[in-house]
Amino acid sequence: MASIRDVAKKANVAACTVSRVLNNSGYVAPETRDKIEKAIKELNYIPNELARGMFRQKAGIIAMLVPNIVHPFFSTLASYIEKELYKNGYKLMLCSTDDDIKKEKDYMETLKSNIVDGVISGVSNLKVKEYKDFNKPLVMLDCIINPKIPVVASNHKLGGELAARKFIESGCKNVIHICDTKATKVLSYQCHVSLEKILKSNNIEATAIEIKWNDFDFEGYLKLAKKVLMENERIDGVFAADMPASAFLKAAVQLNKSVPKDFCVVAYDGTYTTNSNILNITTVVQQVSIIASKAVENILALIEEGKIIESYTEVDIYLREGETSFKSIGNQSFSP
Amino acid sequence: MASIRDVAKKANVAACTVSRVLNNSGYVAPETRDKIEKAIKELNYIPNELARGMFRQKAGIIAMLVPNIVHPFFSTLASYIEKELYKNGYKLMLCSTDDDIKKEKDYMETLKSNIVDGVISGVSNLKVKEYKDFNKPLVMLDCIINPKIPVVASNHKLGGELAARKFIESGCKNVIHICDTKATKVLSYQCHVSLEKILKSNNIEATAIEIKWNDFDFEGYLKLAKKVLMENERIDGVFAADMPASAFLKAAVQLNKSVPKDFCVVAYDGTYTTNSNILNITTVVQQVSIIASKAVENILALIEEGKIIESYTEVDIYLREGETSFKSIGNQSFSP
Repeated sequence: MASIRDVAKKANVAACTVSRVLNNSGYVAPETRDKIEKAIKELNYIPNELARGMFRQKAGIIAMLVPNIVHPFFSTLASYIEKELYKNGYKLMLCSTDDDIKKEKDYMETLKSNIVDGVISGVSNLKVKEYKDFNKPLVMLDCIINPKIPVVASNHKLGGELAARKFIESGCKNVIHICDTKATKVLSYQCHVSLEKILKSNNIEATAIEIKWNDFDFEGYLKLAKKVLMENERIDGVFAADMPASAFLKAAVQLNKSVPKDFCVVAYDGTYTTNSNILNITTVVQQVSIIASKAVENILALIEEGKIIESYTEVDIYLREGETSFKSIGNQSFSP
Repeated sequence: MASIRDVAKKANVAACTVSRVLNNSGYVAPETRDKIEKAIKELNYIPNELARGMFRQKAGIIAMLVPNIVHPFFSTLASYIEKELYKNGYKLMLCSTDDDIKKEKDYMETLKSNIVDGVISGVSNLKVKEYKDFNKPLVMLDCIINPKIPVVASNHKLGGELAARKFIESGCKNVIHICDTKATKVLSYQCHVSLEKILKSNNIEATAIEIKWNDFDFEGYLKLAKKVLMENERIDGVFAADMPASAFLKAAVQLNKSVPKDFCVVAYDGTYTTNSNILNITTVVQQVSIIASKAVENILALIEEGKIIESYTEVDIYLREGETSFKSIGNQSFSP
């Protein structure tokens, strides 16, 4: 006998969306409703009272915590998550913690109430115990807590390797990478670890320059960039998240360096800011739409079925060629 | 005898924040708490039961509706509003409607419940009656509904004038301005009206090019920009919101136009995207931090005191010189 999950699978939606149609509770897009009604007919699905009652108590809202709303990576990710949730009958409550531990604690306290059905978190400043004790479905982005809290993250190790290869192909000898060496708990830090390892084993200097993770201050980045590049004219490559990468590109141009001939830039994240500049910035791209859909898939499975689909979902990553590095001339070998 | 508002005024916070301290309900930043306790002492304030009970039923959350989370103007504004609300003991629930009328209706329905104490709205697709009938405190951004619903907006008419003056100073003869001619209800549309009026009375061609208001698609903007500039080589100036302005700048450079000698760009909004480009883009700047603080001031007065501080708050606007136009050479006169 067909279950609600069979209907959901056939219609390619979440089970809770099917329930909303059955209970006529909450907005469901007309095309989605049609698909579900068609699947119900085809499968001869007969709803049972358990299924009917299953979602009556749901708030229909999922919160997402980000360190910063302006940061293009987080705003883009939030935008995709909002669309994905809405397709499945949920609304998004986006909250910014300013990457502040007290604020994060405060928001998590508020979210324990019945306002939301679950939380997707892009911040992780609290102690492991506080996340374990959180009394609602929780999915973490970029931070492993324990196997019971699903994590979705890009393959940051590969991301660092792709960037390193690009610097090698471009003939760089003295690369700086802009990171927060205190943010080692955040999985994206791994791109810096793998970048440095590969560059050094290919006899290329690789120096970490410190900034605060996910802070957002373009003028501050630009000031730092000018200072760093003026103090060391031998630097011929920079690896950084999109906004600091834009700042270093701008500083290099202002200091009359020829890009990419004398100075290469490889960004990390690949948001619209890397394409909207006059020069397209070469970038490692985090596949935000896939991260969003995996995060939503995981949170909905927890909320509706109490199920963990996957403890750790790794999303593939790729390099997008731009005008701030050289293209591969083929047959280049390098030490991994 | 001192009232809660006197204490609030002295401590430079909202009355509800004083109440939170009095009731010990909800988070108040330590420095803020100190200021309030000092003010209470200095004024010899004696709380009354009405004040004590006043905010016990509050959710402590205010929702903000935006057409798009990725759009840098809205994400920057949301960020400032979040900080301002938090200082006053409230949390922000940011919701995106994709500028879709059904979605806006759906979110407004959900927000009628007790989840939030009030709404700040940056979208206005619904009928006037629907906003008037909304059963919670509401502040609109950039759209006048009626005198009972406070509005906060930049002085867009002046914004258009400042931009027009810049094109005149830069010697432009054939300017295009990128706008949504169907979005006339939105107050920012006035900048296009005043720009066109001033340019035409100074014998400068001014043509509106149609795009959808607050859509966010850089690749789409770039495609449009290349098409428009290739079809009409006489165009020597463009006025647009930050992202389409970046697209036209990029297209002009790719078509080998010399900026600003042959082609000038004046953007509108003035977010970080106008400074993070290789060339600083000349821009009319909406003072986002002031808009945020006025919006919060208005919503909190409505929520705690049932008071309308101001039906219509107009925030000043200014032009920031960049590298995509010429600076004034002084003593230039132009027809207003």
